[in-house]
Amino acid sequence: MSHNTFGHLFRVTTWGESHGPAIGCVVDGVPPRLALTEADIQPFLDRRRPGQSKFVTQRQEADQVRILSGVFEGQTMGTPIALHIDNTDQRSKDYSEIAERFRPGHADVTYELKYGIRDYRGGGRSSARETAMRVAAGAVARKVLGPDVRIRGALVQVGADTVDRAAWDWGAVEENAFFCPDREAAARWEQQLLELRKSGNSVGAVIEVVAEGLPPGLGAPIYGKLDAELAAALMSINAVKGVEIGDGFAAATLTGAENADEMRMNADGTVAFGSNHAGGILGGISTGQPVVARFAVKPTSSILTPRAAVDRQGREVEVQTKGRHDPCVGIRAVPVGEAMLAIVLADHLLRHRAQNPDAPSVARLPRN
Amino acid sequence: MSHNTFGHLFRVTTWGESHGPAIGCVVDGVPPRLALTEADIQPFLDRRRPGQSKFVTQRQEADQVRILSGVFEGQTMGTPIALHIDNTDQRSKDYSEIAERFRPGHADVTYELKYGIRDYRGGGRSSARETAMRVAAGAVARKVLGPDVRIRGALVQVGADTVDRAAWDWGAVEENAFFCPDREAAARWEQQLLELRKSGNSVGAVIEVVAEGLPPGLGAPIYGKLDAELAAALMSINAVKGVEIGDGFAAATLTGAENADEMRMNADGTVAFGSNHAGGILGGISTGQPVVARFAVKPTSSILTPRAAVDRQGREVEVQTKGRHDPCVGIRAVPVGEAMLAIVLADHLLRHRAQNPDAPSVARLPRN
Amino acid sequence: MSHNTFGHLFRVTTWGESHGPAIGCVVDGVPPRLALTEADIQPFLDRRRPGQSKFVTQRQEADQVRILSGVFEGQTMGTPIALHIDNTDQRSKDYSEIAERFRPGHADVTYELKYGIRDYRGGGRSSARETAMRVAAGAVARKVLGPDVRIRGALVQVGADTVDRAAWDWGAVEENAFFCPDREAAARWEQQLLELRKSGNSVGAVIEVVAEGLPPGLGAPIYGKLDAELAAALMSINAVKGVEIGDGFAAATLTGAENADEMRMNADGTVAFGSNHAGGILGGISTGQPVVARFAVKPTSSILTPRAAVDRQGREVEVQTKGRHDPCVGIRAVPVGEAMLAIVLADHLLRHRAQNPDAPSVARLPRN
Amino acid sequence: MSHNTFGHLFRVTTWGESHGPAIGCVVDGVPPRLALTEADIQPFLDRRRPGQSKFVTQRQEADQVRILSGVFEGQTMGTPIALHIDNTDQRSKDYSEIAERFRPGHADVTYELKYGIRDYRGGGRSSARETAMRVAAGAVARKVLGPDVRIRGALVQVGADTVDRAAWDWGAVEENAFFCPDREAAARWEQQLLELRKSGNSVGAVIEVVAEGLPPGLGAPIYGKLDAELAAALMSINAVKGVEIGDGFAAATLTGAENADEMRMNADGTVAFGSNHAGGILGGISTGQPVVARFAVKPTSSILTPRAAVDRQGREVEVQTKGRHDPCVGIRAVPVGEAMLAIVLADHLLRHRAQNPDAPSVARLPRN
Repeated sequence: MSHNTFGHLFRVTTWGESHGPAIGCVVDGVPPRLALTEADIQPFLDRRRPGQSKFVTQRQEADQVRILSGVFEGQTMGTPIALHIDNTDQRSKDYSEIAERFRPGHADVTYELKYGIRDYRGGGRSSARETAMRVAAGAVARKVLGPDVRIRGALVQVGADTVDRAAWDWGAVEENAFFCPDREAAARWEQQLLELRKSGNSVGAVIEVVAEGLPPGLGAPIYGKLDAELAAALMSINAVKGVEIGDGFAAATLTGAENADEMRMNADGTVAFGSNHAGGILGGISTGQPVVARFAVKPTSSILTPRAAVDRQGREVEVQTKGRHDPCVGIRAVPVGEAMLAIVLADHLLRHRAQNPDAPSVARLPRN
Repeated sequence: MSHNTFGHLFRVTTWGESHGPAIGCVVDGVPPRLALTEADIQPFLDRRRPGQSKFVTQRQEADQVRILSGVFEGQTMGTPIALHIDNTDQRSKDYSEIAERFRPGHADVTYELKYGIRDYRGGGRSSARETAMRVAAGAVARKVLGPDVRIRGALVQVGADTVDRAAWDWGAVEENAFFCPDREAAARWEQQLLELRKSGNSVGAVIEVVAEGLPPGLGAPIYGKLDAELAAALMSINAVKGVEIGDGFAAATLTGAENADEMRMNADGTVAFGSNHAGGILGGISTGQPVVARFAVKPTSSILTPRAAVDRQGREVEVQTKGRHDPCVGIRAVPVGEAMLAIVLADHLLRHRAQNPDAPSVARLPRN
Repeated sequence: MSHNTFGHLFRVTTWGESHGPAIGCVVDGVPPRLALTEADIQPFLDRRRPGQSKFVTQRQEADQVRILSGVFEGQTMGTPIALHIDNTDQRSKDYSEIAERFRPGHADVTYELKYGIRDYRGGGRSSARETAMRVAAGAVARKVLGPDVRIRGALVQVGADTVDRAAWDWGAVEENAFFCPDREAAARWEQQLLELRKSGNSVGAVIEVVAEGLPPGLGAPIYGKLDAELAAALMSINAVKGVEIGDGFAAATLTGAENADEMRMNADGTVAFGSNHAGGILGGISTGQPVVARFAVKPTSSILTPRAAVDRQGREVEVQTKGRHDPCVGIRAVPVGEAMLAIVLADHLLRHRAQNPDAPSVARLPRN
Repeated sequence: MSHNTFGHLFRVTTWGESHGPAIGCVVDGVPPRLALTEADIQPFLDRRRPGQSKFVTQRQEADQVRILSGVFEGQTMGTPIALHIDNTDQRSKDYSEIAERFRPGHADVTYELKYGIRDYRGGGRSSARETAMRVAAGAVARKVLGPDVRIRGALVQVGADTVDRAAWDWGAVEENAFFCPDREAAARWEQQLLELRKSGNSVGAVIEVVAEGLPPGLGAPIYGKLDAELAAALMSINAVKGVEIGDGFAAATLTGAENADEMRMNADGTVAFGSNHAGGILGGISTGQPVVARFAVKPTSSILTPRAAVDRQGREVEVQTKGRHDPCVGIRAVPVGEAMLAIVLADHLLRHRAQNPDAPSVARLPRN
């Protein structure tokens, strides 16, 4: 049991505070002889990097990753891979506002009550800066999954405004500042967020992540279910308050007849599912269909609007957070969600292989 | 890593198939010298027991629990507690329908693809029968949490019909067959489910679970967050497709100013929160407010309505499940959700105590 | 982390007190479609069973194992296997001697200091009775390892009297009451133990266990070393005070030149090691040679000879243990040691397969 | 499960190859508000540092440790502590001898067979260089244990030459190059090792580590026994082939009457043990007496004497290792053994506290 480790066979341990000298992670359990260099990881970090548009925090970090171990002559060795990013923009600023005061809706107060000490600079360990290492580890996880598995994410809701699924275009996702698959929604969100930013407020969002090209059989009953561990992975991302798989909460409104993903056979002996209400997971085990999950991110609690709060001495105060913050933290959660999905899947791929080395890589029937 | 174990310091390992000779679990890590007898566990099992109303499966099981180890002269010893329930109503019936055919939306097909073998009788290991042991273990978890912590659950939505929160009465929950806190909703659901049952169909539901009387400080960054592990715990329950904490998905629609749980001071030096959008958890750590979670259960896939399916030989067939099944599995998920909440909290209480033995038991400021 | 669980992917959780209603274990992580029935397990339990000669405890237990889950129509399903043995000979006797008094050299006093409660009847949880479940789980582990892996054990020392390795005959092991591979030593031990038994005393012993037919590559740096986990496995057996691999402590007396296991090539491209000082493990990873380990068992502390002791109230007393006990607990530790070796190897086989699915099954060079 | 992580609640994950850019570790689970700076760690590293006498490897490494996270204003925060040491003396040399050839008795060949790739420079991941991070983590573990717990180690045997226990002086340990508590033995070893070094050979050794001032109750049945985890911890150190607790293998030669650690009462209500054959551990749980363990280190396999070997292509060759190596790796294993003992004890202290918060800190009777 480790509070800063995720995964079992593919295993990520992160460390570092927002304004310490560096952040890093150790990725253990990676199979040997996979090609891996910093160039495989950096593009994913660049997608998450702060300071790239006016809709995300203006902190300037190069987020240049270095591989310190586990790779030899461009190949993994099966030994732990240490990834390291120096913190470069630890702007010298006045932290008196948050050093002694607890922002409502922020981890400040719970860290104080639990530990009696915290690095208040930029949120310390509770900062979303930690998610850079998730993204880096996620890039390694993609290597473990191999080129046939495709993992993508998109922002599907900002505030109450959702994308039009009929207008979904994965190509659009990389064209706008929001990872939005619906060009019209992206335009609306631009307006909405400019206004929010001006008013010193923030807003929540919903992200969808999808994995295609998976084998069936990933995940395991009862407490190693793929969806259970994916729920933990996504809920562990900063500010996430809800997770759903497939139809999710909407499944509660369906009848059994409606919810059934009916099956026919493809000519090649694989199962053809008529729908994917289940989000690619039945009984905690992947069906071979795309795995689909969504998660809700609350609005950031670091806002310019003054809020009633208390301080370390138990005095009633007001808090108003100046500094560089995201009007919609949900945006940068897209690459983080993708990374967590990749990490969970890589872990389950190794676990599946250990117990079921002869399982089919596609949903073929009869199995033998 | 164990697929059939949940928890770290308070640790539950379950075993058993629906129609095997028995089901059971081992509860490890329980502190010594807690009073515990079968009479502390049985009432919770009785709440979950099948055959109690026409809205749940008609299988008849006494679900009489026996403690086989770990308790001496009415007290826990710190050694593993083995709990055991014999399966008594393994009705000899014709399983030919599901022995070779895969029910759409059911774990049948993924177990086949993963393992190449399964006990098809009553769903085998994938049956909700396993949840009886969660409820039994949850009763032990309540002992660990002590009498000051109160854990309750309720059904808050059946299909699209939700309870009126203004009419919420915990007293109503034990009066109807649905664990429904709103008497009028209970009356409506009775009609709705009678009709569904007659038509051989099923429907989904949403359950809410609440823990009161908790200390602050439970949970830990980053991957041991209380909400992350609670999400895994609830998502691991059969048929669950979504989990949310506090405002959950609705938090995505709020602004930062709206979502902030403002703080004032009580006269006794504890923090008075003005609201609980966060569901009692900030940064993965409990605030001392009630922990509130909801989860969505899909409609059961075992229905009388014929559905397109395939069989083990890869032939296209129709499936229509006869036998004893729940028109709304969400009902019996209420005591299971409570149990999982208790288990997660007991585990985190022990973990918190290990690392932070001097943390305050209420949200008091200044802390020291 | 669980105090009553051993292993990671092949995972054994045991429960039960010596004089409770039953003992049992849950074996998780077993691959599916392995043939398994009670008849595969019972012979190993019969070898360890008490009451079989006058040199071991006279308790009469049938130790009849039942499989309660995880097996369907004679095959494993990949789901947890629950094994169960009823305690039948819980002789009603007077426990007043040990209920309140702590036997020197026994776990009585540490259980009291740690837990403040214990089941004193027959040693409760600290009884060697728990090892019956290790033996049962070991039989399942052998199935996972397959027929090419052969695991055997022998008693090689009783008191200061060691076997003559030149006279080693595995055939002799099953012929005498001591699992002794040297017929002359067996004859000497018979005399020695008869005298000890008469005098109400006991003696220590050393056991050797050997696994042949293993693939290279089992085990992993740095903290998952095969020898490190084997050391934990063997040291966890009741009364064990020392563990060594290969030459063990004698390796300390060698020079590097002497200790080197030189290598030549076999005609089939596999490595031919000239010696096995390493006991089949280098850098924590198996070489493909036989894995050889030894462990030392102290004399049982339950003896008729009176010893100075204290009681629960802190009074100075004398203790003299009547009842059924082993003059040499090391004898029955032989099948237990074999079982632990099998369990460690099965666990590592699954772990190796997860990370290195294309590793060779023999020590072949070049590897590719 | 992680191959590069040790411990459960106090948890150490190491990374790094001998000749990579750096080595490091992450220490998780450390309680908050412990005073900690680099100056608390560096002295222990300095004791283990290479190049300090002619009896250890001549590699020159400053081994200057940096704390990169988890500490704020000189105090731990309860968040993961990242420790980092740059590799500075990665001497550019010719590795052709060991790049393609496997040293007998070395991990070279098993890494090749398992992974098909390895960083051959200086042994890569299998190098004893990894133990620097154990020593660093051990210094943090000592902080967790507090000032009342004293952990010390000594070299007690080189080759077949053992110390005279009657001459044992802890003060001598820091005065000679061998951590030898017997000044006369130290003088003999100096001669012995000078000759060995000249002849290009090496020799094994035995180390003893002792912890004093421990509370009773550390460790837990059955698979979390203090001695079982200590055995794993010590056996995981490079080149260790045997581990024993208390009397260890000598206990096999004792009778039960001899081996009994008899008990009387001290005036203050604590237990007075008459001897410590058990090495401070009964039933896997600490008694409150000193915990005593020994481990045997084989001679290093990197020697100048030519040995028969094979290469990656399966050709028969000779190997003779030039370069900087230890004639007796057992010497530098002393601080490493101390560190592993500290790590195991710190982990168990946290685990004990979680389950038994009211257990006494000394062996007091009656307990309540």
